[in-house]
Formats: sequence, structure tokens, C-alpha cells
Amino acid sequence: MKIKINSAGIIIIGNEILSGRTLDTNSNFICNSCTKLGIPVNEVIVISDTKKLIIKTVKNFSKRYRHVFVTGGIGPTHDDITAESLAEAFNRKLILNKKAKKVLNEYYEKSNIKLNESRLKMAYIPERATLIDNSVSAAPGFKLKNVWVMAGVPKIMQAMFTEYIEPRIKRGKKIYTKDININRAEGEIAELLSSLQKKFPSVELGSYPFIKGIHLGTNVVIRSTIKKQLLVVYKKLKSLEN
Amino acid sequence: MKIKINSAGIIIIGNEILSGRTLDTNSNFICNSCTKLGIPVNEVIVISDTKKLIIKTVKNFSKRYRHVFVTGGIGPTHDDITAESLAEAFNRKLILNKKAKKVLNEYYEKSNIKLNESRLKMAYIPERATLIDNSVSAAPGFKLKNVWVMAGVPKIMQAMFTEYIEPRIKRGKKIYTKDININRAEGEIAELLSSLQKKFPSVELGSYPFIKGIHLGTNVVIRSTIKKQLLVVYKKLKSLEN
Repeated sequence: MKIKINSAGIIIIGNEILSGRTLDTNSNFICNSCTKLGIPVNEVIVISDTKKLIIKTVKNFSKRYRHVFVTGGIGPTHDDITAESLAEAFNRKLILNKKAKKVLNEYYEKSNIKLNESRLKMAYIPERATLIDNSVSAAPGFKLKNVWVMAGVPKIMQAMFTEYIEPRIKRGKKIYTKDININRAEGEIAELLSSLQKKFPSVELGSYPFIKGIHLGTNVVIRSTIKKQLLVVYKKLKSLEN
Repeated sequence: MKIKINSAGIIIIGNEILSGRTLDTNSNFICNSCTKLGIPVNEVIVISDTKKLIIKTVKNFSKRYRHVFVTGGIGPTHDDITAESLAEAFNRKLILNKKAKKVLNEYYEKSNIKLNESRLKMAYIPERATLIDNSVSAAPGFKLKNVWVMAGVPKIMQAMFTEYIEPRIKRGKKIYTKDININRAEGEIAELLSSLQKKFPSVELGSYPFIKGIHLGTNVVIRSTIKKQLLVVYKKLKSLEN
């Protein structure tokens, strides 16, 4: 299996997503961030807190995608098994990371909270992993090979991504995007879109219906790494706007 | 590969999800509905509008899960390739479905809209598939083997699921759920949760931190198909509530 030079996969870990209790917004945040970084996301998967499944999925994604983002399961409770699963997936030991312990120590001391055994669990990280800073609640994420492991709590995940990952990750070619609202139903402009798509294969055209009062319209999204081509298509669509 | 007797997989098709343009809420709706129906969801996957990928994913899920739900890509435009992909996945022809054509004809006639070629595309359905009614905008979804294919627009998808699928799908054992807010941080109660989980393996305990003003708390979700066991665990946790 050959890895795609510029590609990404997202693994969301959590029974709470699969049961419907929690709406996953993490993958949307990461997808948006990756688009800004010029990294196309190829796949998102949501799996349960099951060790075997996490191991299998992480190994598979790590082989197939240039970047893998994992969220969830690095807290202090029994259902947080992501760190040990990652260690096993890459044949590493799960060890008490001194830097992580120090960070937790300082954080809990300042907050006058006891760093008990459960909390200390969050300092156990696969050996030779790089820590990902957590400016919200101290307990770090980590990077192992091409896999970035973050917390599941959106606020923490977002801080990890924006403050730590974004400045460090290898950016891809900028993906230019423009969208345009056309006040005609999808069915009216489908043929034209199809011929445009054929004529400009370097541009990706997406068509999304919307309802505005009693009128049907179509939001057309144009994406390309070639700005010039995008603008040509945009102009052609612009003439249809009203 | 053996199929799990009661299981489900969800396939969300759409570049707009992977680019971050659209937050996927369809999988959350289906997960919640499945929980109510006693059908555990094992996996959610988001993939792009790519024929090969759709075929591969659908074949794989159809073998592994009792029920497969697909959303997206059954509209009139060039990027709507779900029906033809499904046909290919199951070695069926994509044919003009008479009933689907009739439904579209009636709908567009009533709305004084021309049923042009693009719109007629929505009546092409894999042979021997069962149509799924669409009370919102007529163009039907369909069921092929154990795969239910629905529209990507949330309002239409929800109508298809609630009005057509729910009354017809085989329900599983009721999954009982209770949750409780404990005004202690996860790290405080982690040990107790862990021992409860070990003692009651038929109950699934999920632990989710929350912040309320300056206080940290934990939302504990208890799930089980055995009501009695769930209530025992609930009582034990109730004593920690304040």
C-alpha cells in the first residue's frame, strides 16, 4: 500500500458518539483546519472504545495517510484506553513520561488538587512519543510516527490543534475555495454543472440544494489548487446567479 | 467474516463533509434513532464522492453489519453517484424504476416544474431494489440487501428514516440508558467507576467531563440491555451526586 503524499485520515474514538449522546464536532473542526492548511482529508471514521478496534484502525490509517488525527480516550477514567492502544499498535511500551508528570504536577499543585493515581494515568504515554501541549487542562496529547493524538473534549482538542499542531505540521498546496448561491433548483443547472466539471477537471464542483422561503436554490462550491482555473469557473457560474 | 446479529454501520458520502464546509448531523440522527430501536451502531465512516471508494466501503460494511445506512449522493447533479455505485457494488443494473418515475412525474407536475433529464436521473435505481418514500421532495431512496440508501439533505433523510425505515426495520433488545451529573472531577471518581465497571460487565459506563462555572463535574452515562443491573449501578452512583 502506498501512502498518499498529501492526505489525512481522522479517527474519532468514543461510544458516546456512536450511541448518539454526543454530536461529533471534532472531525468538522479538523476538516476545516486541514482545508486551511492545504491538507485534503480523505476519510473520517468513528469507532468505539475497544482496544482491538483502535489498534487495527490506527495501524491501517497510519499506513494509508500522510497525517492521522485521533481524538478521544486520553482522560483519567477506565474507558480511556487510547494511549495504551497506540502503544500496542506501534509495539512501544507505555511508560510514565517525566515531562508529562511534571506538567500535571505543576497544574494540580497550582489548583490545589491532588495528583492521585487516576490523574497520574494521563502521564503514561507510549515511549519515544512527542508530547502535544494542552493549554486548557495540562494533560498532554502526543504524536507517534504520523499519528497526532488529541483529547476528545472539543475545547481542549481545538487548543491542541491550533496552538501546537498547526505551526508544526507540513502544509500542502493551498486549496482555493469559492462558493456561489444560484437561485435555481439543482435540477435546472445540473446539466451545465456536469459539462463545466468535464471541461475543468482540475476544479472540483460540489452542488448543494437549499430552500429559501418557497424558493429552491443551489449552493455551488468550487475548489481547486489552481486559482486561475477556479476563477474561470467562478465567472461562468456568476452569470447564472440571478 | 461473520455478521454480527444486531449491529449497524453508517456510511456518510460527501466531499462537503470532508472539506469542513458541512457539519455532518446525519450520523448523529441515525445513531440516536438506532439506540431507540435497540440497534447498536458499531462504526461511522465519512468518504468522498468517489465511485471506487463507495463500492469498496459498501461491500465491506454490507458483509460486516446487519444493517447499513448510507446517506448522500442521490440527487440530480454530476457529483451524485451513489445509485450507480450501489448497483455496481452488488452487480445489479441501474434501471429506470417505473414507480420512481411515476412519483417524480406527479410531484413535478403538481409543482409546475419540468421533469428534465437531470431530474429523471433520480428515478434510476439498481434493479430489484425497494424504494424508500420521500415525503419532502419525492425523489426516493432505496434498499438493496441490508443497505438502506437515503438522501444527504438532513430534513429529507430524517423523513425517510422516521417514516419509512423505523416502522420496517427489525428492532433489537431495548438499550436502557440513564445518566447522572456528579459534581466531582473525573479524576476524583475514576477509581470508583473502574471498580463498578469491573463488577457489572453487562453495564456500559461512560464518563464525560463538564465545566460548570468554575466547577468541574462528570456526566456518567450508564447503558445496558438489562434494566435491573442498570438500576443497581445507577443507585450506587446516585449516592455520589452531591
